[in-house]
Amino acid sequence: MSGPSALVPSPVRIIGTGLIGGSLGLALRGAGVEVQVVDASPGAEALAVELGVGSVPAADAADPALVIIAAPPDVTPALVVRELQRQPQAVVTDVASVKGRVLAGVLAARESGEITEADAARYVGVHPMAGREVSGVIAAQADLFRGRPFVVVPHPGSSPAAVSIVRALGLELGAVPLSLAADAHDDAVARVSHAPQVVASLLGATLQQAGDDALSLSGQGLRDTTRIAASDPRLWVEILGANAAALTPVLAGLRDHLAEILDALDALERGEGPERGARRRLADLIASGNAGVARIPGKHGGARDRFAQLVVLVPDRPGELARLLTEIGQVGVNLEDLRLEHSMGKSAGLAHLSVQAGREGLLTTELGARGWTVVDG
Amino acid sequence: MSGPSALVPSPVRIIGTGLIGGSLGLALRGAGVEVQVVDASPGAEALAVELGVGSVPAADAADPALVIIAAPPDVTPALVVRELQRQPQAVVTDVASVKGRVLAGVLAARESGEITEADAARYVGVHPMAGREVSGVIAAQADLFRGRPFVVVPHPGSSPAAVSIVRALGLELGAVPLSLAADAHDDAVARVSHAPQVVASLLGATLQQAGDDALSLSGQGLRDTTRIAASDPRLWVEILGANAAALTPVLAGLRDHLAEILDALDALERGEGPERGARRRLADLIASGNAGVARIPGKHGGARDRFAQLVVLVPDRPGELARLLTEIGQVGVNLEDLRLEHSMGKSAGLAHLSVQAGREGLLTTELGARGWTVVDG
Repeated sequence: MSGPSALVPSPVRIIGTGLIGGSLGLALRGAGVEVQVVDASPGAEALAVELGVGSVPAADAADPALVIIAAPPDVTPALVVRELQRQPQAVVTDVASVKGRVLAGVLAARESGEITEADAARYVGVHPMAGREVSGVIAAQADLFRGRPFVVVPHPGSSPAAVSIVRALGLELGAVPLSLAADAHDDAVARVSHAPQVVASLLGATLQQAGDDALSLSGQGLRDTTRIAASDPRLWVEILGANAAALTPVLAGLRDHLAEILDALDALERGEGPERGARRRLADLIASGNAGVARIPGKHGGARDRFAQLVVLVPDRPGELARLLTEIGQVGVNLEDLRLEHSMGKSAGLAHLSVQAGREGLLTTELGARGWTVVDG
Repeated sequence: MSGPSALVPSPVRIIGTGLIGGSLGLALRGAGVEVQVVDASPGAEALAVELGVGSVPAADAADPALVIIAAPPDVTPALVVRELQRQPQAVVTDVASVKGRVLAGVLAARESGEITEADAARYVGVHPMAGREVSGVIAAQADLFRGRPFVVVPHPGSSPAAVSIVRALGLELGAVPLSLAADAHDDAVARVSHAPQVVASLLGATLQQAGDDALSLSGQGLRDTTRIAASDPRLWVEILGANAAALTPVLAGLRDHLAEILDALDALERGEGPERGARRRLADLIASGNAGVARIPGKHGGARDRFAQLVVLVPDRPGELARLLTEIGQVGVNLEDLRLEHSMGKSAGLAHLSVQAGREGLLTTELGARGWTVVDG
């Protein structure tokens, strides 16, 4: 443990010791912050203490400077309000992955006089965009948030001091803080996270009807499009339900677009003429997909066309991939991204390399001279 | 060029010199097969000859033993019938990625007496499952098919000798031959290739409406689910149109399932009680996706649960990934799969490693001892 954190005030009280709460505690203690942990389940609380997440606050413990609600989303709004009441000096935040409902709970409590305007000013939501396929404190890790987006979600009444402390929390975690209003955040995650989850699950579900023969033709495209379908049902029911308002229009648009595509396929199957525009509608679909996917930022937030792609055949023997990467290093080209692809039954893989645009010619020549088979270039 | 192929008879005539025809020619010539090339476009034909794909058959050229139609799908059925007529001794195949329409053309010609039953017996379709985001003979490569599924599509009237020659073609290409009937093939590719393409394009298209803020929250899940949306519209219009009959029921099922999910989200948004079963329907969706995706074969055709996953932090400096892989080799653990993940703005990537189940403990310990941060394990 290093000296006290220069960024986050002590003590921090974490309420809820699952994957996120546990990881926050480990990271903050590693940064020298005093961490108090509280969990509705005494067993979960004891386990978190045993794993080094923090200590249970004694009756005479110091009041927390920052309270982080890391409890299930359905109880989060009430816990935020309760802590704003109980800890009149503390900044209070929550890590729920849908922010509109929590903020609505805080604003309703302010309206009803349950909390004051000054209390509400101490609330700033946050969404640390990390997560794993596993859950629970056992899976917690101090570096869970490192390099990930950390969305700070203030409301118009949030005090600048509270915003600053929550932002500092993101920096202390090694995450990348950015600020969004609650509705903008919820719309954003509906588009970049929740809709992809639903679509991957829908596509994955269609595979239950596929025969083994069909599945033997599976390629990397199917693997990529369905990878996130291997997610926890309980967690996702809560997330999708909490963000139904923002998610519905995105999915409804997708449903209408799909209906249009089915109509175009029907016209083609019936052999209808070009006046129905069926081919054009299919081409528009693929072109719209091209345009949308080109907007996704690549590594370091840069556009993807700054990078060139190469594919190299890698014999399926220990050490071959390491040898390839060593030799790429010797050529002096920095690898921006790497994806390995295996084909069924054969003894070679394909390494998809991404390098800075303009470097691919040199790399192709040099790897070829070293005996590698460069497939693209 | 080695001696004559032990597998594929000479000469082979390739009709159509795009990416697939060109790559077939390069591979077969490399295997010592005599290759004749023919293209409706004299310019394309000349370019293919110049690139070493094959030679234009002279007036007194030997009759081909095998004719491969690698022309656009819309003209393929007519070309197959024409070649069965013109080359009464040759086995005739085609590489169209949808097989039902081509076979229907051959059977209709047999019914109408355009070709005899013996002619039809010389036809066996094929689908070499390779492809690149680029097209044209310039992108052709001899190893395009290496390690990829190569679906041999005989019909009940195909002669065993013809089936054997087409299968040998797949072996000579270094591909992995397997046999499916035309309708089973078309149903299979609808499920594992065409439906994923449509879904990825639909999801990619939704990103056109997303703000830059939303896109800055993009994670690996969105990148994976939309990667194949960066596809060629012209090519995909033909493929989707040709397979409309098999694709429609898969997409219609997906549409109905999506409507059910929208209904469940609506019930949750209105705050309706559990009697509507909204939460259960969302949980069923995610669980169905889990079950479907678990059926996709992994590397070497094995099930994915034979492998364990580890995540290692890799500093973003040249040579670090190579060092990691070298040290994994030193530990004596064979890497089954590897995926690199970068987060925006930060100086470390995450290497997702897949190793044989049971080896992950050793690897975690040994990498930790060597100073690596192992995130999962």
